[in-house]
Amino acid sequence: MAASAILFITLALLNSIRISLAFDPHPLQDICVAPTLGLDTYFLTTTSTCKDPKLVTADDFYMTGLNRPGPINPYGVTFTLASVATTPGFNTQGQTSLYSELAPNGIFPPHIHLRASEITYVIEGSVEVGFVTSFPDYKYYSKVIKRGDVFIFQVGLVHIVRNVARGKKSVTISSLNSQNPGIIFLPDSYQTYED
Amino acid sequence: MAASAILFITLALLNSIRISLAFDPHPLQDICVAPTLGLDTYFLTTTSTCKDPKLVTADDFYMTGLNRPGPINPYGVTFTLASVATTPGFNTQGQTSLYSELAPNGIFPPHIHLRASEITYVIEGSVEVGFVTSFPDYKYYSKVIKRGDVFIFQVGLVHIVRNVARGKKSVTISSLNSQNPGIIFLPDSYQTYED
Amino acid sequence: MAASAILFITLALLNSIRISLAFDPHPLQDICVAPTLGLDTYFLTTTSTCKDPKLVTADDFYMTGLNRPGPINPYGVTFTLASVATTPGFNTQGQTSLYSELAPNGIFPPHIHLRASEITYVIEGSVEVGFVTSFPDYKYYSKVIKRGDVFIFQVGLVHIVRNVARGKKSVTISSLNSQNPGIIFLPDSYQTYED
Amino acid sequence: MAASAILFITLALLNSIRISLAFDPHPLQDICVAPTLGLDTYFLTTTSTCKDPKLVTADDFYMTGLNRPGPINPYGVTFTLASVATTPGFNTQGQTSLYSELAPNGIFPPHIHLRASEITYVIEGSVEVGFVTSFPDYKYYSKVIKRGDVFIFQVGLVHIVRNVARGKKSVTISSLNSQNPGIIFLPDSYQTYED
Amino acid sequence: MAASAILFITLALLNSIRISLAFDPHPLQDICVAPTLGLDTYFLTTTSTCKDPKLVTADDFYMTGLNRPGPINPYGVTFTLASVATTPGFNTQGQTSLYSELAPNGIFPPHIHLRASEITYVIEGSVEVGFVTSFPDYKYYSKVIKRGDVFIFQVGLVHIVRNVARGKKSVTISSLNSQNPGIIFLPDSYQTYED
Amino acid sequence: MAASAILFITLALLNSIRISLAFDPHPLQDICVAPTLGLDTYFLTTTSTCKDPKLVTADDFYMTGLNRPGPINPYGVTFTLASVATTPGFNTQGQTSLYSELAPNGIFPPHIHLRASEITYVIEGSVEVGFVTSFPDYKYYSKVIKRGDVFIFQVGLVHIVRNVARGKKSVTISSLNSQNPGIIFLPDSYQTYED
Repeated sequence: MAASAILFITLALLNSIRISLAFDPHPLQDICVAPTLGLDTYFLTTTSTCKDPKLVTADDFYMTGLNRPGPINPYGVTFTLASVATTPGFNTQGQTSLYSELAPNGIFPPHIHLRASEITYVIEGSVEVGFVTSFPDYKYYSKVIKRGDVFIFQVGLVHIVRNVARGKKSVTISSLNSQNPGIIFLPDSYQTYED
Repeated sequence: MAASAILFITLALLNSIRISLAFDPHPLQDICVAPTLGLDTYFLTTTSTCKDPKLVTADDFYMTGLNRPGPINPYGVTFTLASVATTPGFNTQGQTSLYSELAPNGIFPPHIHLRASEITYVIEGSVEVGFVTSFPDYKYYSKVIKRGDVFIFQVGLVHIVRNVARGKKSVTISSLNSQNPGIIFLPDSYQTYED
Repeated sequence: MAASAILFITLALLNSIRISLAFDPHPLQDICVAPTLGLDTYFLTTTSTCKDPKLVTADDFYMTGLNRPGPINPYGVTFTLASVATTPGFNTQGQTSLYSELAPNGIFPPHIHLRASEITYVIEGSVEVGFVTSFPDYKYYSKVIKRGDVFIFQVGLVHIVRNVARGKKSVTISSLNSQNPGIIFLPDSYQTYED
Repeated sequence: MAASAILFITLALLNSIRISLAFDPHPLQDICVAPTLGLDTYFLTTTSTCKDPKLVTADDFYMTGLNRPGPINPYGVTFTLASVATTPGFNTQGQTSLYSELAPNGIFPPHIHLRASEITYVIEGSVEVGFVTSFPDYKYYSKVIKRGDVFIFQVGLVHIVRNVARGKKSVTISSLNSQNPGIIFLPDSYQTYED
Repeated sequence: MAASAILFITLALLNSIRISLAFDPHPLQDICVAPTLGLDTYFLTTTSTCKDPKLVTADDFYMTGLNRPGPINPYGVTFTLASVATTPGFNTQGQTSLYSELAPNGIFPPHIHLRASEITYVIEGSVEVGFVTSFPDYKYYSKVIKRGDVFIFQVGLVHIVRNVARGKKSVTISSLNSQNPGIIFLPDSYQTYED
Repeated sequence: MAASAILFITLALLNSIRISLAFDPHPLQDICVAPTLGLDTYFLTTTSTCKDPKLVTADDFYMTGLNRPGPINPYGVTFTLASVATTPGFNTQGQTSLYSELAPNGIFPPHIHLRASEITYVIEGSVEVGFVTSFPDYKYYSKVIKRGDVFIFQVGLVHIVRNVARGKKSVTISSLNSQNPGIIFLPDSYQTYED
């Protein structure tokens, strides 16, 4: 049997499985930095293995330029994530950060984070925030918040954020208490059933 | 027996106990806003009771002016918290927000959050951040981070934040993934044993 | 002060708060039957108090006639729940049962259970089942299952059940691993934002 | 060194360990289907690795013929399980289903599920169900339930199910809220100490 | 309406419910000492309320004389517990201690702790320890341990401890990682079904 | 490509990652003994893999000579641990045992266990025990306990143990409810920042 075939089999075996992490908080170690060698995004957000502590550096706990916006999407918003995918030291620590800029009239359409509550802090401008409780009440709570204010979206509930600053962008930073909060945009999910 | 005596006994009985909440995440309800009627701060940060849903309003999920700094303490820092004590809708959602301003050379001296990891985002200026692992390694990881950067402090470890912006204040916002993270400043705790 | 006023105040005080239960599984007692005296549905589904063990009977763990269907709703389905609201002994045990009958072409439209996975067993007929993963993939998994088959819907994901038995009803029973799974029907939630 | 020796060492190394999953609910991913390639039953019921999402199909969440009874055991009962061993998509979802047929006078003798409460629904016939609390009370709760009824056995307590339909079989389906509930039949466990 | 009647109703209302605690570890407070005013043993072992912190003293975290044996039972053993029932400061801390003395040939017959693993340390003498895994393997692991040794019983499994010191007593101390471990002695539980 | 190179790559790949365990209690298996083949201490205290059950023996659950003291440290104390590092069967069972001997005037200086409460039982002599609550109260609770007494240190709080037996050693055994409690000695941690 050829040596390269063995290598292929071994790597294929390692590649066909993905490690899961069953729970967010209270890790059993001081640090458990996610390994990054040849792993895809899916693996990174859910790893239960740790990088060799001897190879860990301060950079593993750090991300620069979270406030660098990407291209504006069709809804008029742009967002950047600091997560275990960008910062392997987030692994097992149960948190994700989300930086957003909303163009005038930009909106995050109705969506859900399956695994996290979300606190939004307004850095600049002002936004309308709102969420809806579940069946059978579907009660809607909403508020306009401005620079220096915070609002909390309850875990698992449908919510929106809309820029209401006249002709200006608004900027927010959000904290989500899961390593992998998950997002379901209702319009996108709906379309799946219509296709 | 006098009616007022009964009222007194009843209230005393209710007053002599405090409700605990055993765990942070994954509440069993959509919302469980903390009740505020005549309860002290201790109770508020740890309640396992919910306000009558019919009385809940959007204001229960909201705090204005988190960015309004209070007086500078002897270490040259000031901080404000958004927590269940300020915003009863934080109850059962497993999060606290911390807004800080550090005067030139201001420092958060070595301290621990017992029940939360902490992600710090720099809004303005630049800070040195660092944390130490536990016995027997006590390895120190540190970094200077500036506007737009984030750094994560691992849950339960001793850490510091120091303003390194020359002659200017620095401003940060931190997310902690517990409703009651807890703080132990090592200098203060030490002094207890010396007294 | 009048005695009746004291009674009123005491009851009002007890009535203005609701007890929460922070987590589903692993209770600290053998049994913790939910108390039923004068409490509303909301309280019952989320209680953290237990009935006096001396008053508990076998009936507290029992529900008769889960298979008795109610009126058919506009979507052509009817469902009955066995939960802590019908059976107080479900309290702290982390489960809910759902019995459904679907008329010909009846459908449970896209919906989410925030706090539970769901296993559906077909008692009679045949149904199409399907669920969609979250952003950004929105991958759809679907299957037709018939009498004696089971299918599992992953916790928190949007899913549907549709009767595909020609001209006949289908009957299913589902298990959900939370005391209060929560339901969000996407059409209903959507409408909230349009109103 | 021979290539086949390397393959042997690598496989032996992979084979000598088994992956554990520390907790039932609240997975960090939408789906984490158990991998099946060359793994034994033990591994399957406890995996913390996930199948490559690209290889996952709807069949991974499905089991046909749960209602196909096997041979009757000495106690006059037969049961089939839908679990992560039959349906890899059950992995991390915290549930197992149990289909049972009891011959006339058939009985599940006193047994315990270490890690799950159990809800039993009667599809056909009627059964006596009962459970006993722990030391020092050992209080016994029992009930006869029939077609369409449910009964809940509290997690970790000793319980029985006995067919009381005259001269007919009874059929039940049970939900257990753990991926690996565990069973200890008291007669079997006893015998271990007597051997 | 008479004032005493109101008092009666109020107390009856408070008395008819018992507070549950859903989970052992990771309390949200530094301390949550169990209140003791007029509460029965059942309540004490499961409270989710805390004593007013201002009334807490060091004695709340303390028990004297755990090593004072009570009367020997028919199996030739005597045991004392340090738990939330003796030491209210154990509340929410997830632990119980068990001190045992076994007469010559004394035995703890086969039993289960539903909610805790158990580590036994031998202070004096020597004991045979053993436990059995669950269905279908029922594998028995046993060992004789002597002064200064420890052995761990896995959570939820049937186990025994037998004095094997010739003509002498043996003394052990055990730690159980639950505030309310629960005990089921198999002989006692069996007898319930035979009665 | 050389066969030895493949072996090197494979082993390097396996060596560069460490497995984490996200949570202490409630394992999904009866037993999950930590594998020991060529793994370092770090790995052993945090493994999420299990030894092949067929290779497990009673010795995996056992440690002899916990009461054999090592050399006295500068603080006048010596301690031995029974943990997953000495006894692989501790894996997933959420406990660690600590045996200590304190020379006259010996002291465990102020320290924290991040992940466990601690119950100390005095086998011989008498000790002063004390702990401090967190910011802002820093209330100190302390007590002298003697042979046969127990005291509980609340999870995460700074505490000390000091020998107060006149001119004699004291001996204690402690239970900690985590597989990896973690220790931070405040003097050591402090020194890190001064270096």
